[in-house]
Amino acid sequence: MLSANPVLRTTKPMTTATEKKPAIFTRTPNLREENTLALRKQLHEYFVTTFDRYESLFEVLTCDQAYYEKPISLRHPLIFYYGHTATFFVNKLLLARMIVERINPRFESMFAVGVDEMSWDDLNDAHYQWPTPAEVKAYRDQVRFLVINLIQTAPLQLPVDWYNPWWAIIMGIEHERIHLETSSVLIRQHKLEYVKTHPQWIPCQETGKAPVNRLIQVPAGEVVLGKDKSNAYYGWDNEYGVHRADVKEFQASQFLVSNQEFLDFVLAGGYESPQYWEPEGQGWLNFTQAKSPTFWVKKNSGWYLRLMTEEVPMPWDWPVEVNYHEAKAFCNWKKNITGLAVRLPTEDEWYRLYDEATVAPITAEKAKANIQLDYFASSCPVNRFAQGDFYDLVGNVWQWTETPIYPFEGFDVHTIYDDFTTPTFDERHNLIKGGSWISCGNETLRDARYAFRRHFFQHAGFRYVISEDVKPVPSSHYENDKLLSEYAEFHYGDEYFGVANFSQSLANLAIQWVGDAAHKKALDLGCASGRATFELAKHFDFVTGIDFSARFVGQGVLLARGETLRYTLADEGELVQYKSRNLNDLGLSETKDKVDFFQGDACNLKSQFTGYDFILAANLIDRLYSPAKFLSGIHERLVVGGLLMLTSPYTWLVDHTPREDWIGGFKKDGESFTSFDGLLALLSPHFELVQQPIEVPFVIRETRRKFQHSLSEVTLWKRLK
Amino acid sequence: MLSANPVLRTTKPMTTATEKKPAIFTRTPNLREENTLALRKQLHEYFVTTFDRYESLFEVLTCDQAYYEKPISLRHPLIFYYGHTATFFVNKLLLARMIVERINPRFESMFAVGVDEMSWDDLNDAHYQWPTPAEVKAYRDQVRFLVINLIQTAPLQLPVDWYNPWWAIIMGIEHERIHLETSSVLIRQHKLEYVKTHPQWIPCQETGKAPVNRLIQVPAGEVVLGKDKSNAYYGWDNEYGVHRADVKEFQASQFLVSNQEFLDFVLAGGYESPQYWEPEGQGWLNFTQAKSPTFWVKKNSGWYLRLMTEEVPMPWDWPVEVNYHEAKAFCNWKKNITGLAVRLPTEDEWYRLYDEATVAPITAEKAKANIQLDYFASSCPVNRFAQGDFYDLVGNVWQWTETPIYPFEGFDVHTIYDDFTTPTFDERHNLIKGGSWISCGNETLRDARYAFRRHFFQHAGFRYVISEDVKPVPSSHYENDKLLSEYAEFHYGDEYFGVANFSQSLANLAIQWVGDAAHKKALDLGCASGRATFELAKHFDFVTGIDFSARFVGQGVLLARGETLRYTLADEGELVQYKSRNLNDLGLSETKDKVDFFQGDACNLKSQFTGYDFILAANLIDRLYSPAKFLSGIHERLVVGGLLMLTSPYTWLVDHTPREDWIGGFKKDGESFTSFDGLLALLSPHFELVQQPIEVPFVIRETRRKFQHSLSEVTLWKRLK
Repeated sequence: MLSANPVLRTTKPMTTATEKKPAIFTRTPNLREENTLALRKQLHEYFVTTFDRYESLFEVLTCDQAYYEKPISLRHPLIFYYGHTATFFVNKLLLARMIVERINPRFESMFAVGVDEMSWDDLNDAHYQWPTPAEVKAYRDQVRFLVINLIQTAPLQLPVDWYNPWWAIIMGIEHERIHLETSSVLIRQHKLEYVKTHPQWIPCQETGKAPVNRLIQVPAGEVVLGKDKSNAYYGWDNEYGVHRADVKEFQASQFLVSNQEFLDFVLAGGYESPQYWEPEGQGWLNFTQAKSPTFWVKKNSGWYLRLMTEEVPMPWDWPVEVNYHEAKAFCNWKKNITGLAVRLPTEDEWYRLYDEATVAPITAEKAKANIQLDYFASSCPVNRFAQGDFYDLVGNVWQWTETPIYPFEGFDVHTIYDDFTTPTFDERHNLIKGGSWISCGNETLRDARYAFRRHFFQHAGFRYVISEDVKPVPSSHYENDKLLSEYAEFHYGDEYFGVANFSQSLANLAIQWVGDAAHKKALDLGCASGRATFELAKHFDFVTGIDFSARFVGQGVLLARGETLRYTLADEGELVQYKSRNLNDLGLSETKDKVDFFQGDACNLKSQFTGYDFILAANLIDRLYSPAKFLSGIHERLVVGGLLMLTSPYTWLVDHTPREDWIGGFKKDGESFTSFDGLLALLSPHFELVQQPIEVPFVIRETRRKFQHSLSEVTLWKRLK
Repeated sequence: MLSANPVLRTTKPMTTATEKKPAIFTRTPNLREENTLALRKQLHEYFVTTFDRYESLFEVLTCDQAYYEKPISLRHPLIFYYGHTATFFVNKLLLARMIVERINPRFESMFAVGVDEMSWDDLNDAHYQWPTPAEVKAYRDQVRFLVINLIQTAPLQLPVDWYNPWWAIIMGIEHERIHLETSSVLIRQHKLEYVKTHPQWIPCQETGKAPVNRLIQVPAGEVVLGKDKSNAYYGWDNEYGVHRADVKEFQASQFLVSNQEFLDFVLAGGYESPQYWEPEGQGWLNFTQAKSPTFWVKKNSGWYLRLMTEEVPMPWDWPVEVNYHEAKAFCNWKKNITGLAVRLPTEDEWYRLYDEATVAPITAEKAKANIQLDYFASSCPVNRFAQGDFYDLVGNVWQWTETPIYPFEGFDVHTIYDDFTTPTFDERHNLIKGGSWISCGNETLRDARYAFRRHFFQHAGFRYVISEDVKPVPSSHYENDKLLSEYAEFHYGDEYFGVANFSQSLANLAIQWVGDAAHKKALDLGCASGRATFELAKHFDFVTGIDFSARFVGQGVLLARGETLRYTLADEGELVQYKSRNLNDLGLSETKDKVDFFQGDACNLKSQFTGYDFILAANLIDRLYSPAKFLSGIHERLVVGGLLMLTSPYTWLVDHTPREDWIGGFKKDGESFTSFDGLLALLSPHFELVQQPIEVPFVIRETRRKFQHSLSEVTLWKRLK
């Protein structure tokens, strides 16, 4: 391990951003390079060009004040972003244990956390005593030396993959490439007086009459998304795993929507017509009072377009840049005037277009797309780069989709960056695809998946499609209610202290005890998250799971749909880990058509639930408001000769069961009267005990180091009459 | 196992109470009789004579109304006691699994629970639809058959001891003998019209001038109380175990205080002089407005004494019958007028008298004392039965002592009667010794120990002693605060799930890590119940335990005094088990002079606590209001080179530690910052980490079937500067 502090060996003369001007900006490296020296050289080049290019971006600023004044109120000033990408390296290298000390704790605290674009209350400038740009540059130089030194001298075990500490280095570079783009957007939103033209950031000069858009038929086909951890290129967590989908035939616009095409919507009063806007979009429109796209500038002399460092007369044939709400309102308007099912493409449809047009991956050659800074520091005409029958499937500007970002099957967070994607699994962040003129590195790969809040601005526009078919995306919700998460883990998660899965143990006992007896219908009463319901369905023809809590039942329903149950588990304080399970993982996928789940009250069960050969009531009776009512009526739900399996730790609590309704666990007529005594008393009119009580342990994880470890008394009863 | 129901074989003709009149009432049997037939015969005789004699007591009642009207407001009417002793057999035989069914569930519910003499609010006659005496007699006959049948036919494994199911039979008989006495007291408190004389219940006719009491010197000596479970005679739980005491020289009155002697106190205005009464006695006096002993009746013709079935002119030479408060007030008055240290004897002093006078045990011969109904159905003159130099050390009336009942070392509850004594371990129940004219069976043994609320009436009086020496009795308190009990068990109790005692494991690790280094002074900070303090004292010369909670510290203090820590442990609902531990049990008695305990605040420790070679802070930091304050100052308490051992599951809770004071377990500057990171940051100015973190498990029992099972991260730090 290297120390980040105090003195770094200078391994080569410092480069500064202006000295270099690569003809082609470096591509994200193939990490399967087997020559370690070649790999070190490649990473060194990739790091330096990225670090340089990022610094060159800030050279367009005209004065120190440009660093301190916020371009938009909801994000930090640019000085933060200038330091942030350097601090990110230090933080991730520390977590990966490639270094053991900080370079500048004060800076690294200040430059650590960006501001989410929607946190109105979060930002308080009083907290920040920003350093000067020169101080930040000096700090960046320290980080530059550190990273170069590591790349040249740190022990390197191949492969450099997800599990390798060197992943932190690539992560830092790719992270800086993302900020290259997002900082360019902030600069584009800055006052004109704070920016100046720069030889490395020359916008496109080409413009002409916008082409008339037309719809192209796209045949149905399957798309396969996702990649595995053996992939040769760096990826963010959300790219891994697998997703397959059959996409129905649809039509898509040949070009991205141009400024010209969007003008019709503006002139038609689109910004004054709430009916075209989705409810969330109406809220945004109401808040901002927008009248036209954000980078459009209306002057007496006509419309202009704000680019990164200048305003130019409106290039009508360039793609319009809007947020999701504006794009969606345009589609709704167009749907209204054409009668066609106009909407944005889904992520799957974008891949269908990509595959159908056989878009070529970006190589070391100049791209056949306005991407990677290979051509311009701006958009260009929508009819400049053809890809198959279409234009701009990749490059020029990002393209909004209808699809909120969601995790693929097999999604996993990376330990040193567990909040890259998970906070966006909230169905409020939509995917953008294809990349823009400044997208580079990982952003240019087919696998790349980025998502932003729907009201956010990037260099992003859209193309539209005609199709009625919009599939709901798989649930991306991570359950973080403490109790629901604990039960998800209790039912479907890992085992602790060597204690076997409780639901599975009970189901196995049940199946053993039922033996060759009738096993058509079973009922899992108080099924909670439903694991025993699935386990019983291995033996029974059909199993019904019922729980009082619709939220618990929801976990079973979700799994029975074939989806993945996702939850966060408390580790320590506020720190969590992310977990997911589905029936496949548990060898239970065959059972999903043999189960059904309902919300219901065990003390007041609907009449339809009857005629069962077997009923399981696991850890239920001490959570009922009237266990006696349940016990004295449960025989009606079983066939004569049917079996009732009860399990309970008899943890009576007045919060669940009024004291007078406990069935045992007190002195009765002066003598100890146990819950088992209570069961005998209440069940004897219709049941005989057919197994002596046994205890089955279970463990519920509360935190990484704290567990409930209990014993549930299991009894088996046969209905006699 | 026999079924108590439905039909019982009639094994011999029924006896009724009036047919038999044994010259000598049967003695409690020697249970080491090795001939089982002889033993069955003996138990049969003991049962039948007891059952008969008890029934004959109710023959003094004049009418059914006498069964239903309560003699005193705070206890059930006599019909209850008529049924109760029979039901007791059924209940205990069920618990001992000698029978499996009830005889009469309704009766057995009604007759199960007596009423404690102090529960003012507990009794509601509306609940009771008492049966007729004839119905109860029929029920008693069923129970009689049941028990006789068992005694004659149930399998009998010798020895009949504490662990034998037959113990329930003797328990039932001895229980009935107790009620023979307590019911006789209730009858004595009944209206005269409800009672009549009876040939089996003839009081003493002898009376004369009361002797003048005098003090006799008793030399110092040791007494040994308690017995072990191999003892040949039935005993109640409180008699087992061992207690040894050195009793200083004292003087004792030759006679019990007679009515005559007590009259002086009455005439001196004792009942109108609160200054002679203890505070609790003043409360009783105030409530009852008593002016003389409860069985004294003042008529125009002078004082009379109420006996069980009649009133007689005051026999001035009989012992006065009073409660503790009256006896104590008499002593205080006498102390005041004599200047002598007059008080009641302690239990130890009563044994000293018993041993010194070489009182003979009761045998099959007529007793040399007014006891066992061998002579009278009442008291007799205080100078009738000499025992050594004294009179009435046993027999005539019970004698109040200064000693609240407490458990001997080795005390254990009996599983089928866990609330015989434990509810009286409250320092509000004082021991009475010696027995009365109606005391029989176990009550007549030297080992017998009965205690009643101090305001309660029995056939009880007192003798007084002169001595300044009153030793405090050992704590008899059973901790039943949930948290304190759980910690008592956590520190000193059993192991669960095979997880070794946590405090011991930590101390062993500490001793191993300290090795040959200095080990003079150690500090156990957050010592809770103190187990690790004792464990560390195996190696360190002196160990100080400090906890924020004085109640926790109290457990360590009590153990260090050589006393026994007693606590109830929740089993299920309200059911508990009784546990006790002392340092002997744990092999720690050698350490008790090497420890000291203090209440203190780890975040604000007094300056005296410094200069330690070793500090343990086990499961402390996540319970502090300011862990940072603690961690940044703790080096001042250690010598340079000293070791600090921290353990924690890092269960941060805002209830203990405000969120802003957590030292880790959150995202800091965007990255996961664990509690261990926080320790490193806060301790590094003065410490180096000398052991990598390890996890040590611990288990806290909440109920019989519910446990907290946690992992504590253990780190070791050396003070460098």
